[in-house]
Amino acid sequence: MTAIDFWYEFASTYSYPAAMRVEARAAERGVSVNWRPFLLGPIFADAGWRDSPFNIYPTKGRYMWRDMQRICDALGLALRRPEPFPQNSLLAARIALALEGHARAAFSKAVYLAEFAEGRSISDRAVLSEILASIGAEPAAVLNLAESAANKERLKAECGLAKSLGLPGAPCLVTADGEIFWGNDRIEQALDWAGRA
Amino acid sequence: MTAIDFWYEFASTYSYPAAMRVEARAAERGVSVNWRPFLLGPIFADAGWRDSPFNIYPTKGRYMWRDMQRICDALGLALRRPEPFPQNSLLAARIALALEGHARAAFSKAVYLAEFAEGRSISDRAVLSEILASIGAEPAAVLNLAESAANKERLKAECGLAKSLGLPGAPCLVTADGEIFWGNDRIEQALDWAGRA
Repeated sequence: MTAIDFWYEFASTYSYPAAMRVEARAAERGVSVNWRPFLLGPIFADAGWRDSPFNIYPTKGRYMWRDMQRICDALGLALRRPEPFPQNSLLAARIALALEGHARAAFSKAVYLAEFAEGRSISDRAVLSEILASIGAEPAAVLNLAESAANKERLKAECGLAKSLGLPGAPCLVTADGEIFWGNDRIEQALDWAGRA
Repeated sequence: MTAIDFWYEFASTYSYPAAMRVEARAAERGVSVNWRPFLLGPIFADAGWRDSPFNIYPTKGRYMWRDMQRICDALGLALRRPEPFPQNSLLAARIALALEGHARAAFSKAVYLAEFAEGRSISDRAVLSEILASIGAEPAAVLNLAESAANKERLKAECGLAKSLGLPGAPCLVTADGEIFWGNDRIEQALDWAGRA
């Protein structure tokens, strides 16, 4: 089965609708999805940004929130701006990486809903533990694994790979032949490319 | 007939495929297109940018050129990077604004083809005069009108309006009810919105 890498950042707004719809769109085309959580911080730092570009550039930020509202309305998804924005996504990314397969996808979607549909804090261990329990995982054991030295190194390596691939933001879909498609609005194009390859 | 404003900048890469396809996509939906040339310079200056963000941020720039190649390949459009990039688009924008209706659209598409399919310099009066002649306009008369004080002021006013609308970049489609859709990849969504309104 053709596979595609779905690179996502928990603090990223457009990653939310992308995460909620990528599996269904991929299944229509017989493509399987590898969920690859990463952090945009190191990539943004290279660009000189210490905050979300949507905060640094208010015109872009205003546009993005209105655009997100339209996108979520069309998909039947609730949208609530978390405070602060962006959220600190480090622990959520470590947990997602410590999980595998279906559990990683289920956890990731639940985190996005908590953050952007309910406006909850995803840097809060209690919130993340609750989400882990809701998907049938054992919170304490997963948190232990997530915060192990090996898992922390694994996330660093993933972020290094994202940077070396040249991912310009999140979400990105990357095909087996190395094509990068950036944005929730490029999911169909990326999957069509993967399906043809 | 429902109309939509198509805001475009001659130096903008994604405005090229958008300009080449917006009329056909609009016609399918019974929407008419108002061609509104503007300059991103004043908007980018507010963000602190004195150059194209695709030059300032190399990761974004590399992604954009590969993305443009895929988009142009899919549309059967040639792509050649003009030198320098971005081109100075001031005179081309003044000329476009001095033209009306069909002539403005025809001139604009011809400028994009000269710039991004042939890599020609669109700040060159000889190139712009040749384009004007090719669409059946009288180059000297149009250049006179384009560089009149009134037309220069009109372009400034258009740029001021673009800024006050909150356009985050180019191209943008703006519906009669004030919705902004940014990007070549949002043409269909924008026209569907306009058609429903």
